[in-house]
Amino acid sequence: MDKENTSLFPKGEKLPNDWFTGNAFLSPLVAKDKNNEFSAGAVTFEMGARTNWHTHPKGQVLIVTEGSGFYQEKGQPARAIRKGDVINIPENVEHWHGASAKTSMTHIAITNFKDDVQVTWLQPVSDVEFNEVNNQK
Amino acid sequence: MDKENTSLFPKGEKLPNDWFTGNAFLSPLVAKDKNNEFSAGAVTFEMGARTNWHTHPKGQVLIVTEGSGFYQEKGQPARAIRKGDVINIPENVEHWHGASAKTSMTHIAITNFKDDVQVTWLQPVSDVEFNEVNNQK
Repeated sequence: MDKENTSLFPKGEKLPNDWFTGNAFLSPLVAKDKNNEFSAGAVTFEMGARTNWHTHPKGQVLIVTEGSGFYQEKGQPARAIRKGDVINIPENVEHWHGASAKTSMTHIAITNFKDDVQVTWLQPVSDVEFNEVNNQK
Repeated sequence: MDKENTSLFPKGEKLPNDWFTGNAFLSPLVAKDKNNEFSAGAVTFEMGARTNWHTHPKGQVLIVTEGSGFYQEKGQPARAIRKGDVINIPENVEHWHGASAKTSMTHIAITNFKDDVQVTWLQPVSDVEFNEVNNQK
């Protein structure tokens, strides 16, 4: 198969269902070190997969590299996002991201550290919440 | 044309030949702000295009998203790099990156700031230096 038509990154390891609904995978790209005050990885969400609601103490940047899905901040309409889109997530704003019910999505996530913390995990995005977003599409 | 087969990012604006040889382009992705102690952009090098030799005071991460080319640190053999590769460039190491003589390349660049400085530009990569790397391929 032509490399040009394959995925940019390996699919990686499945992410735990404690924090993700459905099948999501992480392929690490770069770790925090003395220069980089962030880690970066490629996250692939199969159809229907999404993060729990969560916050980042120092924000996160998403760069969508394949497919399409959603980004939603609590109390706001979901934003449909797709290949090429960039989302600069503010600190301490409750939100989720993931695939849609009918498409998969891969994004690079660049996640800043505040001291040693990158994320605070909250409750799952319920099927009712997820279906509402997909039906608004 | 199917979006899946188009480039991830817009090509952007041509980068100045003061610091780049040939045709290189920048599509900005995210700016430094109160959370992100870096800026990120997608850089496209047409065939034969490359950066000047340069250093970063707090390093840079490259993520190759299309095509292939080279990364070379001064005094070291060049490293052939391609779609999916990640390069974590150390601080204060003289190096260059760019396309090959026969292929184009696009990479995301995540460039850290030390105070307000991201890069110190040096001399161009000469045709002799560039041809030597391409012939070693």
